Amino acid sequence: MIFRQLFDSTSGTYSYLLASRRGGEALFVDPVREQMPAYLQLLTELDVRLVHALDTHTHADHVTALGALRDVTQCRTVMGEFSRADCVDHYLSDDETLDVDGIRLRAIYTPGHTNESFSYWIGGPQPAVLTGDVLLIRGTGRTDFQGGDAGASWDSITQRLFPLGDETLVYPGHDYKGWTCSTIEEERRFNPRLAGRTRAEYIDIMANLNLPDPKMMDVAVPANLACGQPEGRD
Amino acid sequence: MIFRQLFDSTSGTYSYLLASRRGGEALFVDPVREQMPAYLQLLTELDVRLVHALDTHTHADHVTALGALRDVTQCRTVMGEFSRADCVDHYLSDDETLDVDGIRLRAIYTPGHTNESFSYWIGGPQPAVLTGDVLLIRGTGRTDFQGGDAGASWDSITQRLFPLGDETLVYPGHDYKGWTCSTIEEERRFNPRLAGRTRAEYIDIMANLNLPDPKMMDVAVPANLACGQPEGRD
Repeated sequence: MIFRQLFDSTSGTYSYLLASRRGGEALFVDPVREQMPAYLQLLTELDVRLVHALDTHTHADHVTALGALRDVTQCRTVMGEFSRADCVDHYLSDDETLDVDGIRLRAIYTPGHTNESFSYWIGGPQPAVLTGDVLLIRGTGRTDFQGGDAGASWDSITQRLFPLGDETLVYPGHDYKGWTCSTIEEERRFNPRLAGRTRAEYIDIMANLNLPDPKMMDVAVPANLACGQPEGRD
Repeated sequence: MIFRQLFDSTSGTYSYLLASRRGGEALFVDPVREQMPAYLQLLTELDVRLVHALDTHTHADHVTALGALRDVTQCRTVMGEFSRADCVDHYLSDDETLDVDGIRLRAIYTPGHTNESFSYWIGGPQPAVLTGDVLLIRGTGRTDFQGGDAGASWDSITQRLFPLGDETLVYPGHDYKGWTCSTIEEERRFNPRLAGRTRAEYIDIMANLNLPDPKMMDVAVPANLACGQPEGRD
């Protein structure tokens, strides 16, 4: 399997390209609209056919490339079943599996950062989970807007992600310190918001982060509800 | 095997931590001094014992953490045999192999970016090569100082790296556009400085890049000739 992690430095976003093999079919997870030229170059050079473009949730810090990728590649746009983006072609149910050309991706409903956030588990010899913003490396996504809920975040992480197993690689939607991946074991044992904490303590931590709104929020959220194309398809 | 790519955003540098397993022995390649707190955290949390810290070459854009890592972990500092850094504990010869607790790393002399640059090939089910600055993703390292030589760069890439095989993953010392890895096949076929070019054309391209000197060069090179500790060991 081809697995590529790509970083958008403007928003600190990780996007993921998965393909079965050169010449095979591919998926994109959490693509960023400004990176479209790079994505099209990579799809061409790897000689892969994009069949699905997925977001883990409605992002507030960057504009998605879902619609732009669909326009160019005719891929399906995909989100979790509680997304309010009516531009999406397919809504994944909790525990639904996408099997694409040898890539097995399972959707896991993990609300908390938003009320419609999903994580995507990737099977294979080295299982991995793309956690979007619910679980970050030694951190977690804020829970103070878009239906965010700290209790739901705790439950998603501890009841849905931790049971995936200690060896599972964790690939987040963001990292701001240059770390590219982690494991469930590391986050269970060393994430400072989770390790040794109670659910009540976590809720208290998240209630007191006092973060400013994302700079792009007022633009990004409405744009992303239209798959990144509020002006209509290109 | 544990493999971690870490990014220093200030200098755009990728560093690599390899370890056999939790509780096992580890290597660092191209560590950045400013990232020491993160490295020590990760070594502790992964419960690995650092036995070697290697640089691919004498960097001109950041200060190495080799000396600082040695001070804290008692690891050996390692560079290629043509390094002028007399602080180094072990100088690898061309084709010399380090076997550490199940990790097999082979040193490949790849001059061109500097006259003492080595690449490090990592064996295993998915071979990979850490190319430092001689081969970048869709680019190559500049060849205009520190004994750089465009012809040597061409020869290193085409005669030492390309023969590693198309499936070999390429992990570079830098990327400035958010790409994290590549393959030998991609660079052979799609690197714009190499694909379809002759050696003479490559030399001409490299002679006309007209790049400014790295901002940190006057500080970084002398510091790195002392393993990042021009003031003496901490």
